[in-house]
Amino acid sequence: MLKGISKIISPELIKILMEMGHGDEIVIADGNFPAESKGQRVVRLDGHKVPEVLSAILKLFPLDSYVDNPVILMETTVKDKDLKPQIWDKYNKIVNNNSNDKIEFKQIDRFDFYKRAEKAYAVIATGEMALYANIILKKGIITD
Amino acid sequence: MLKGISKIISPELIKILMEMGHGDEIVIADGNFPAESKGQRVVRLDGHKVPEVLSAILKLFPLDSYVDNPVILMETTVKDKDLKPQIWDKYNKIVNNNSNDKIEFKQIDRFDFYKRAEKAYAVIATGEMALYANIILKKGIITD
Amino acid sequence: MLKGISKIISPELIKILMEMGHGDEIVIADGNFPAESKGQRVVRLDGHKVPEVLSAILKLFPLDSYVDNPVILMETTVKDKDLKPQIWDKYNKIVNNNSNDKIEFKQIDRFDFYKRAEKAYAVIATGEMALYANIILKKGIITD
Amino acid sequence: MLKGISKIISPELIKILMEMGHGDEIVIADGNFPAESKGQRVVRLDGHKVPEVLSAILKLFPLDSYVDNPVILMETTVKDKDLKPQIWDKYNKIVNNNSNDKIEFKQIDRFDFYKRAEKAYAVIATGEMALYANIILKKGIITD
Amino acid sequence: MLKGISKIISPELIKILMEMGHGDEIVIADGNFPAESKGQRVVRLDGHKVPEVLSAILKLFPLDSYVDNPVILMETTVKDKDLKPQIWDKYNKIVNNNSNDKIEFKQIDRFDFYKRAEKAYAVIATGEMALYANIILKKGIITD
Amino acid sequence: MLKGISKIISPELIKILMEMGHGDEIVIADGNFPAESKGQRVVRLDGHKVPEVLSAILKLFPLDSYVDNPVILMETTVKDKDLKPQIWDKYNKIVNNNSNDKIEFKQIDRFDFYKRAEKAYAVIATGEMALYANIILKKGIITD
Amino acid sequence: MLKGISKIISPELIKILMEMGHGDEIVIADGNFPAESKGQRVVRLDGHKVPEVLSAILKLFPLDSYVDNPVILMETTVKDKDLKPQIWDKYNKIVNNNSNDKIEFKQIDRFDFYKRAEKAYAVIATGEMALYANIILKKGIITD
Amino acid sequence: MLKGISKIISPELIKILMEMGHGDEIVIADGNFPAESKGQRVVRLDGHKVPEVLSAILKLFPLDSYVDNPVILMETTVKDKDLKPQIWDKYNKIVNNNSNDKIEFKQIDRFDFYKRAEKAYAVIATGEMALYANIILKKGIITD
Amino acid sequence: MLKGISKIISPELIKILMEMGHGDEIVIADGNFPAESKGQRVVRLDGHKVPEVLSAILKLFPLDSYVDNPVILMETTVKDKDLKPQIWDKYNKIVNNNSNDKIEFKQIDRFDFYKRAEKAYAVIATGEMALYANIILKKGIITD
Amino acid sequence: MLKGISKIISPELIKILMEMGHGDEIVIADGNFPAESKGQRVVRLDGHKVPEVLSAILKLFPLDSYVDNPVILMETTVKDKDLKPQIWDKYNKIVNNNSNDKIEFKQIDRFDFYKRAEKAYAVIATGEMALYANIILKKGIITD
Repeated sequence: MLKGISKIISPELIKILMEMGHGDEIVIADGNFPAESKGQRVVRLDGHKVPEVLSAILKLFPLDSYVDNPVILMETTVKDKDLKPQIWDKYNKIVNNNSNDKIEFKQIDRFDFYKRAEKAYAVIATGEMALYANIILKKGIITD
Repeated sequence: MLKGISKIISPELIKILMEMGHGDEIVIADGNFPAESKGQRVVRLDGHKVPEVLSAILKLFPLDSYVDNPVILMETTVKDKDLKPQIWDKYNKIVNNNSNDKIEFKQIDRFDFYKRAEKAYAVIATGEMALYANIILKKGIITD
Repeated sequence: MLKGISKIISPELIKILMEMGHGDEIVIADGNFPAESKGQRVVRLDGHKVPEVLSAILKLFPLDSYVDNPVILMETTVKDKDLKPQIWDKYNKIVNNNSNDKIEFKQIDRFDFYKRAEKAYAVIATGEMALYANIILKKGIITD
Repeated sequence: MLKGISKIISPELIKILMEMGHGDEIVIADGNFPAESKGQRVVRLDGHKVPEVLSAILKLFPLDSYVDNPVILMETTVKDKDLKPQIWDKYNKIVNNNSNDKIEFKQIDRFDFYKRAEKAYAVIATGEMALYANIILKKGIITD
Repeated sequence: MLKGISKIISPELIKILMEMGHGDEIVIADGNFPAESKGQRVVRLDGHKVPEVLSAILKLFPLDSYVDNPVILMETTVKDKDLKPQIWDKYNKIVNNNSNDKIEFKQIDRFDFYKRAEKAYAVIATGEMALYANIILKKGIITD
Repeated sequence: MLKGISKIISPELIKILMEMGHGDEIVIADGNFPAESKGQRVVRLDGHKVPEVLSAILKLFPLDSYVDNPVILMETTVKDKDLKPQIWDKYNKIVNNNSNDKIEFKQIDRFDFYKRAEKAYAVIATGEMALYANIILKKGIITD
Repeated sequence: MLKGISKIISPELIKILMEMGHGDEIVIADGNFPAESKGQRVVRLDGHKVPEVLSAILKLFPLDSYVDNPVILMETTVKDKDLKPQIWDKYNKIVNNNSNDKIEFKQIDRFDFYKRAEKAYAVIATGEMALYANIILKKGIITD
Repeated sequence: MLKGISKIISPELIKILMEMGHGDEIVIADGNFPAESKGQRVVRLDGHKVPEVLSAILKLFPLDSYVDNPVILMETTVKDKDLKPQIWDKYNKIVNNNSNDKIEFKQIDRFDFYKRAEKAYAVIATGEMALYANIILKKGIITD
Repeated sequence: MLKGISKIISPELIKILMEMGHGDEIVIADGNFPAESKGQRVVRLDGHKVPEVLSAILKLFPLDSYVDNPVILMETTVKDKDLKPQIWDKYNKIVNNNSNDKIEFKQIDRFDFYKRAEKAYAVIATGEMALYANIILKKGIITD
Repeated sequence: MLKGISKIISPELIKILMEMGHGDEIVIADGNFPAESKGQRVVRLDGHKVPEVLSAILKLFPLDSYVDNPVILMETTVKDKDLKPQIWDKYNKIVNNNSNDKIEFKQIDRFDFYKRAEKAYAVIATGEMALYANIILKKGIITD
C-alpha cells in the first residue's frame, strides 16, 4: 500500500497504468468477461465491482482528448435488447466527475468489443455481477 | 467465476487451496504485512478485508484437528501492548461457526510469525487496514 | 482436495474453469485425441473417462444460453459411418440433467472439430477408450 | 496412450519413471498428503486410487534388492493409534505379486516420512481417500 | 530404463510418443536432416540408426488406418535420380512385420517433406549415415 | 506517467514500493555501490541523484516508527576518516521535512551495510557521484 | 558506471546500442509515448529529458549516411496544427554538432511513427514532458 | 577448448554447427551487420575477423554440393558502386582451398541479404572492420 | 554432424566438453545410474554403451596430469563383492591407448561416487547394461 | 560496435563492467580455466588473449585504491614450481601503465583462486594458451 493511492489498486495494476502511454487502452471487465482468453495482460481484481475500479483509475490518468470517444461500452445483444444496464449511469457520473470536458460514451457490438479488448494494453478481471458492465478507457496525456 | 464458490476467491487462490495438503499453512495477511518478502507464494487480494477472505476459505477446507492450535495470530508488540484488536472477535466467530470443535487461537510474537509465514505454503496479501489482523490457518483432512 | 468439489478436478483444471468467461470453450478429449498438438492449454486427466469429467464440470458452470448449440460432438467419419457412439447417450443425459433448458448437441466434421479445439481455452486429455467421445462445452454466464 | 502401458500412467509420469535410476525413490501420496509443498517434482493423478497406480508402476520397474526395505509406509500417529489401515493389505498383495523375493514393508513416523518425501525423485498426488495410504517405492536395477 | 521398453527410447521420447494422438506425425530423420531448423520438438538420438528406432517405436503404437499412406519417405532428388536407397527395404520389412494390413509407403519431394516435417509433432535426430533415410510415421488409434 | 506521482519513479519502482510492507527496507545506492551483486531486486535509475529519489519515495510511504533508526547511512571508512559527506545534511532535511517525529540517522560500517543491503527488499541504483551517499529506508505503516 | 561514458546511459542501454548495427533504429520517446505497447525492447529512463539522452547516444555512434534522413520526428497532428515544438531546435543543434554532414530531419505522421517504432530495435522511455518530443535515430557505420 | 578444434570456435558455436543439417545456412557477419535484429540465433565473436572464422568453420563441414552457389556475398550498394572489397579474394582462397569442386560465389542485394539472414540457422557477429564482408555458407552433407 | 567428430557425440555434449576446464569432471554413467537425480547437467545417450562414449571423449581432451588418479570407478558393493566387472578391462585399454602416461584407476565406494557425481560438471546417461560400469573422467590441460 | 570502445568488448561484457560497483571483482581466465563451473556469470571471449582483454577493461574502470592488492594472480603449483609465467610481466606493464599508483600483484593458491572466482561478479573465458594466465581485477571508484 502507498499513501494517496486507492487500496483497490494492486502493485501490478499501478505498474501497468504507469507503463501505458497516450492512446493505450485498458478494459475493466465484469466477472463473466472472457478476460484470460482475450487479454494480452490480465490483472485480476476478483471480488471487486467495476465502479470502484473505475473511480480509482480516473484519479491516476486523464482520458484521451484527441479522440471523440475515449470511453467504450459493450452494446446489449439481440437476446437482451430491452435491457438498459443501470450501471452505465454510474459510469457516466464517475467519468464526468473526473473530467473537465463532457465525455460521450460509445457503444460497440459484443464481438467488436472482444477484438478491441485483444488489442488493449491490459484487461482487469473484476467480480462485477452486473451484465454488460465492461468498459474500455483510452489514456490521455499527462501534462504536469 | 464458478457456481458455489465465493467471488472473492481468485483462480490462482483456489488452485493453491486445492494443492495444499494436511498440515500445510496459509497466511491471510493485512495490508501492512510484508507479504512479498516473506511469502513463498503470494496471492494478491488488494482492497479486500481479512474476514471476508477467512469466511470464503473456511467453506473450502476444515482446520487441522491433529494439532491443538490450527489458527495463529500475531501478538501485539510492546509499543501497542494495550491494544485489543477488535477484529480478533470477528475471526473467532467466523472460525467457530465453521467448526464442530471449539477452536482456541494461539498468539505468537511478531518475528516468530514472520518466520512461520516464510514456511507457509502461501501468503494472501489483502488490503485490510486493521492492525494485527494477520492470521495463519493450518489445513485439515478432507474426508468426503 | 477441497470440500464440495469433485476429486477428479485437479488444481490446474479448477483454475482454468474459473478463468474461463462467457463464450469460452473447453474440449473434453478422449484418449486418442491429439490433445497436445491442438490445445492452447492442456490439462491431463489420464486414466479417467469422459462422462465423469463432464458431470464434474457441469456442477461448476452452466452452458451458454446465448447460442443454439453450446455442446459440440465430433461427427463419425466415412470409415465409421455406421457407428452410433453409445457414449453420446450418456452425454445427453448428463448435460440435460444439469440444465433447465433442453440442450441439442451439434455434430461437426473431424477436421472442423480440430480447428475449433485449437481455438478453445483448454483441452482436457482423458483416457477414454470409446471412439468419437470428444465433446466441446461453451461456458455460460454465472448469475449468482 | 501407448500399447502395453497402463492408461493411468501419464506422459510426464512415464518420463519420470524412466529417468529414475537404482536407489531413486518415488512417493505415491494419498489425497491429503502435502504433495506440492514436499515434492521436488509433483505428478498429479487427481481422482485416482493408490492401488491402481502402484500396480501400474510395478509393471515397469523392480524394487531395489540392495536394501532390506524397498517399500516404506507412513506409521499411524498417536491420535489414530488404534487404526489398522486396511489398504496396507492391498499394497502387500500387489507388491508381493510383482516380486520374486518376499518384500517386508517398513513403517516410519509421519514427519520422517515428510523428510524422506522431500528427498524423493518425485511425488505422485492421487485422490485416494483412505488415511495413511502414502507409500514410498525404491527403484531397483533393470537387468534385461 | 524400464521393463519391456527398448533401451533406445529416451525418457523424453517416450513422453512425446505417449502425448501424440490419432493423426499426429513423427519424423525419424537421418544424420544430415536439418532437424533443429525444421522440428517443432526435436529429440536427439545421435549415433543411432533409423531402423532400430523405427522398430522400437512400432512396438509402442500402430500406424494410422484412416489414411492410405501412414508412412512417408523423402523422394530422391534429380542429382541422385538413379539412387535406390537400400534402407527402404529394411523399413518395408519392419513396418509390415508390425502391421496386420499391408502398408504402402508414399514418396514426396524433398521440399514438401521439409514442410511436412515442420508440421509434425516431433523430429527425431539420429546419426544414420544412409542417404534419403528420413521417414514419417502417422500414429493410429490405441484400442486396448 | 501518472497524475500526482513524481516522474522519477519508474513503473517497476512504484510496484516495488507498493509491494513492500511494514519493516521492509530499500536501499537508495550511489553510482559506485555494487548494487547488482548485492541486491535481491535492483531498480536502475542511472543518471539520477539520491536526494531527488529520496524526496519522491518519502511522498509515498512513512518511515517505520517501531524502531529507533528507520534510516541507515554507510559510515566513512578509515581511508576517508576525515570526510564529512555534505549530502547527509540534505538527507536530514528531506527526511525530517517528511516526518512528524524527529528522525535520527544511524551509521553502520561499510561491510555491515553490504550485508544489510543483501537482505533489503530492493536496491535502487542511481548515478549519484557523491561518496558515502548510500541510504537505507525502513518502511512504516500505512494507516489511511 | 564506466570512465568516459555518460552517467545517463544504463548498462542495458549501452548493451543495446552496441548490439545495434548499420541501419537499425532506436526511438527516444517522450513521457507520453506508448513505449511499452510499441517497443520490441524497452529501456526505461524515467525522469530524464530527451536532449540529454540524445547527446549521450550521439557520442557513441554516427548516424546512417546511406539514407537521406537518418533522423525522424513525429509530425504535429491536426488538433495541434499550430504548435511549433521548440524542443526540435535543440535536437537540430545536438544532431548537427555531432555530425560532419548537414542532417535534415524528416517528419512523419503520428500513426506511421508508431508503426516505425514497432520495427525499431529499441524504444527508450524518458520522462520528457514536451509534446511531440519523440525522435528516431538510424545507426550508421563504425569505421575506426 | 578441445583437441583439434580451433580456439576461435566457442562452445555455443560448435553446438550450432553440429545441429545444422543439409541445406541450413549460417551468416558470418562483419562488425557493422545488424546481427541481433536479423538473426534467429546470434553467436557473438566480437573482436575477431571473418577470414579466421571462415577457415575454422570450413574445417568442420563441407559446402552444399546440391546447389550452384553455396556461398553468398552482399553486393556493394549504389553509394559504394566502385568499391572492390579486397577481403573477397581472401574468402575465395579459403573456400576453394577447402573444397574439391570449384566454388563460384553469388552476390545478392543488401536487402535481399538481410531477408536471407533472417531465415538462416544462425548469424555470427564478428568485429570485422572491412565493409561488405558478410558471407553466407550453406552446409553440405557429411558422408563419413 | 561434423567432420572428424564421432557421431555418438551430440551437439549438447560437445558444447559441455568444450566448456569444461582443467580439473572439471564428467561421469559416463551406466543405464541404472540415478543420473537425473545426481547430475547438475545431464546429457542423455540412451541406448549407447559406455566404451564407445569413453573412446569418443578421449579423442577430444587429455586426462588431468596434475592428480594421481584422473579416472574413478565405482567399487563393487558388499552384495556383489565377488563380482569382477569385465568392462573395466575395456576401460583400461581405451584409457591407456589414449594416454602417454600409464593411468591407474581409483575405485571409490558407491555413495562416495554419488557425492562426487553431484559435484561433476555433467553426467552422461547411457544405456549400458553392465553393472558397475560408471566411470568419472577429470579433464586435463589443452596445450596446443 | 561503438565509437571509442575496444572491438574486443562484447555487448554483454560492457553491460557487466558497467553494472559492477566498488569492490566487485572480475576474473579474466585463460583457456584452461574451469570458467563455466566456477563463474556466477560467464562471458565468453573464445580465441582472444588475456593481455588484450586486460588493456581494454582498464580503459573503462580504475582499480580499487581501498585495498592493498586490487590485482590477484594464480600462484604456480608444486608440479610447476620452477615455472616463471612470462605473461605476468605483460600484465605488470599494462596494469601500471593504466594506474597512477604503483600496483603490487598478489599471488594466491590455485584452489583459493577458484573460491575467489566463485564469488566474483563475472568470469571472462578467453582462449589464452599461456599457463597460470588467470587474473582477477577489483573495480575501483569512478569519480568523474
